[in-house]
Amino acid sequence: MRGAEGYGTADRAEALAELLALLPDAVLATADEVEPYRRDRALDPHAGVPLAVALPRTTEEVQAVVAWAARHGIPVVPRGAGTGLSGGATAVDGGIVLSVERMRDVRVDPATRTAIVQPGLLNAELQAAAAQHGLWYPPDPASFEICSIGGNIATNAGGLCCVKYGVTVDYVLGLEVVLADGRTIRLGGPLVKDVAGLPLVKLFVGSEGTLGVVTEATVRLLPAPPTPRRIAAWFGSSERAAAAISEIAAAIRPSLLEYMDRTAIDAVEDLLAIGLDRSAEAFVLAGSDDLDPEGRDIARMVEVFRRHGAILIEETTTARGAELAHARRAAIPAVEARGRLLLSDVGVPIPRLGELIAGIERIAEDRDTCIAFIAHAGDGNTHPLVVFDPADPAAQDRAETAYGEIMSLAVSLGGTISGEHGVGKLKRPWLEGQIGSDVLEIGQRIKDALDPQGILNPGAVFAPPAR
Amino acid sequence: MRGAEGYGTADRAEALAELLALLPDAVLATADEVEPYRRDRALDPHAGVPLAVALPRTTEEVQAVVAWAARHGIPVVPRGAGTGLSGGATAVDGGIVLSVERMRDVRVDPATRTAIVQPGLLNAELQAAAAQHGLWYPPDPASFEICSIGGNIATNAGGLCCVKYGVTVDYVLGLEVVLADGRTIRLGGPLVKDVAGLPLVKLFVGSEGTLGVVTEATVRLLPAPPTPRRIAAWFGSSERAAAAISEIAAAIRPSLLEYMDRTAIDAVEDLLAIGLDRSAEAFVLAGSDDLDPEGRDIARMVEVFRRHGAILIEETTTARGAELAHARRAAIPAVEARGRLLLSDVGVPIPRLGELIAGIERIAEDRDTCIAFIAHAGDGNTHPLVVFDPADPAAQDRAETAYGEIMSLAVSLGGTISGEHGVGKLKRPWLEGQIGSDVLEIGQRIKDALDPQGILNPGAVFAPPAR
Repeated sequence: MRGAEGYGTADRAEALAELLALLPDAVLATADEVEPYRRDRALDPHAGVPLAVALPRTTEEVQAVVAWAARHGIPVVPRGAGTGLSGGATAVDGGIVLSVERMRDVRVDPATRTAIVQPGLLNAELQAAAAQHGLWYPPDPASFEICSIGGNIATNAGGLCCVKYGVTVDYVLGLEVVLADGRTIRLGGPLVKDVAGLPLVKLFVGSEGTLGVVTEATVRLLPAPPTPRRIAAWFGSSERAAAAISEIAAAIRPSLLEYMDRTAIDAVEDLLAIGLDRSAEAFVLAGSDDLDPEGRDIARMVEVFRRHGAILIEETTTARGAELAHARRAAIPAVEARGRLLLSDVGVPIPRLGELIAGIERIAEDRDTCIAFIAHAGDGNTHPLVVFDPADPAAQDRAETAYGEIMSLAVSLGGTISGEHGVGKLKRPWLEGQIGSDVLEIGQRIKDALDPQGILNPGAVFAPPAR
Repeated sequence: MRGAEGYGTADRAEALAELLALLPDAVLATADEVEPYRRDRALDPHAGVPLAVALPRTTEEVQAVVAWAARHGIPVVPRGAGTGLSGGATAVDGGIVLSVERMRDVRVDPATRTAIVQPGLLNAELQAAAAQHGLWYPPDPASFEICSIGGNIATNAGGLCCVKYGVTVDYVLGLEVVLADGRTIRLGGPLVKDVAGLPLVKLFVGSEGTLGVVTEATVRLLPAPPTPRRIAAWFGSSERAAAAISEIAAAIRPSLLEYMDRTAIDAVEDLLAIGLDRSAEAFVLAGSDDLDPEGRDIARMVEVFRRHGAILIEETTTARGAELAHARRAAIPAVEARGRLLLSDVGVPIPRLGELIAGIERIAEDRDTCIAFIAHAGDGNTHPLVVFDPADPAAQDRAETAYGEIMSLAVSLGGTISGEHGVGKLKRPWLEGQIGSDVLEIGQRIKDALDPQGILNPGAVFAPPAR
């Protein structure tokens, strides 16, 4: 391929002029204009400087951009709302950022209980559109108000309700994808069951923009769920909280099972002042939305919390339950107020949650670094938030070491370096340690088969092609 | 590759001797011994004669067999319990059949609510093992008593409960796979959420043995569901039944929504004599397993059935509900008593169910062929059963024409040629008509990347390699 670094100034100018002609009102190319598109929320310090940012509105425009990139061998970094936490949308030098932020259409079809969405639509916008028809799109990242469906699909995003209702891939029935060579394909559709050919829909969900650019999705909607009952339990030790969570997860299906440690509780209480118990070491928020008027699952969870020594159990009203769920969602921005974050997304088999928490406490101590711990505990997916002062290089070094050690710890416990945020560019160094060289090589074969030039999101998930 | 047809007798004898040395007590090679392994339940008339049947017990033995096949360029047809309905396990001339029927281990881990299973385990055996721990493996093909988990994974099998609980892929968390070159890889594990690397688990589920041989799976279990309430509704016309089903599927989440037409009702009643109403044109069995003591979803369904003109609505006891579910499961063998079957598995968006049924009635008339119609109606997945007398070649011709026309009809309605049985070898001629040449070509690239010699299940899903 004729990679970006092989490009002379004249080549770049010529390619850019061609792109500007293709999308006259939808290309940003000055340094000031491209700056906000160099990084996603992971704030990768090694972000490149792109040649341009393309802002297509239609599938045809995406196709034109990708075909142009393929002709010139120019890297394409697909970007949703830029809220990614793994550097999956970090720009690369001389490439383009293909932002789908203008692609925001949504059509709900109540008859098939599906919606057809463009990838730039925000998760909250899809939820609102579904709600107008009494329907519900379950996957709910904590960032649902600011993250896009395209980004959700790229990372196979989860969220709070996933413990009962599953993740993004469980709701994507169909996709339109622009391939690396500029062809557009359509996969699946409003069919609940379809096994004709390889399961390519499932392959693209979670492929982080490395195999194609999603330009449209058909997603499954559910009837709106009943109002959940929620309970909060406060523990004097993380071990006890983790043991209670493991017992619950093994026996019942809560609709919510979330966790915050003392650091997160403190930060959220500073932000929201809603009466969280700052004396507790751990806060667990549990919910059930089944239709049992006796609330047996709630009663069972209360009994488990009590038996594991909860110091306080709060059976909430609907409003208080919603407030506490909001508090849990606010944890990342709340902790972010204390410093720069390195945001982990490690998962473990649920019975090993206690060991993970204990190990992270050790890492925090060893590295003299603050690590807040929040989790979608009911599916073993956790977000240790490594906090550091960006003005202190030594602190940053220690934080980066801790960030890596957390991933290695999760892998040593039979876990994963990413439960729902993706590998992106930031976690790639730890990927082989989890999945092994053979599995990485098999993934690379698929990548090479679909993107032989390696122009799609180079450096994310897979090593960038040699130039 | 050195394909089977390029093999001389000496080569074959030499290769076979080598295989016998590798698995001394686990190779069948006489004509009589291999005969039962030439076809699955689809009874493909073009089945080949394999060189041998291998019956490994362990992953290492599978690996040895596949490595042997790779060295000799000999096709490998993986086989579970042989209950496939699309010819996915049809033997090929000079290849081997790799039957996993002796690989039957299962270990349930209640702490992670998962089971680790070998692929030859029957679905019913997994269900029984889970039940010993108060757990449940939801995917329940009608053939659950005789079909294997390996086959379920190969086809991403569905079943009756899938309308609420999803299909096989929704329950497979981890896989061990022997690749075409004889390497063994492990993917995923007892983690509910894991997005590290490409979603290869999801790619292998439903790949019909064309990308690798599954030797172990980690599947997710649920707590046992509550006892469902079930209602049966009998209609004087299929249009009305279909309209009622569409309305229900758009608004609520039943745990069961099944359909049988008059031909199926008659055949099942002949077999079971349980008081099915032979005067009805359509029978709908619906269920709800939520915990609402008022049974509001059941009441809503009754109201919908009534409004759409049901001639009889039967609110069942638990025992009668189970009997009627069993009746629905017995439909395929019951209709099979009337002749040879060509078993379709077409799906449509649910609002088009009525058009599909009407179209199939026209095809039956045009082709002067009996077509019974049963369906997992709540997810639009239907099984038109084309019945013919195998002793009458003209009838067989008409039946085969009807079989193809049903698939073309489904595709014309925005549907699929297979909802849960797979494409296998029998439906391959219709695959491109549904997914298109570009999607087929993308699938082929992935196939070629993982199985460059084309030795894994040649002719299933993809055209066999040119020899």
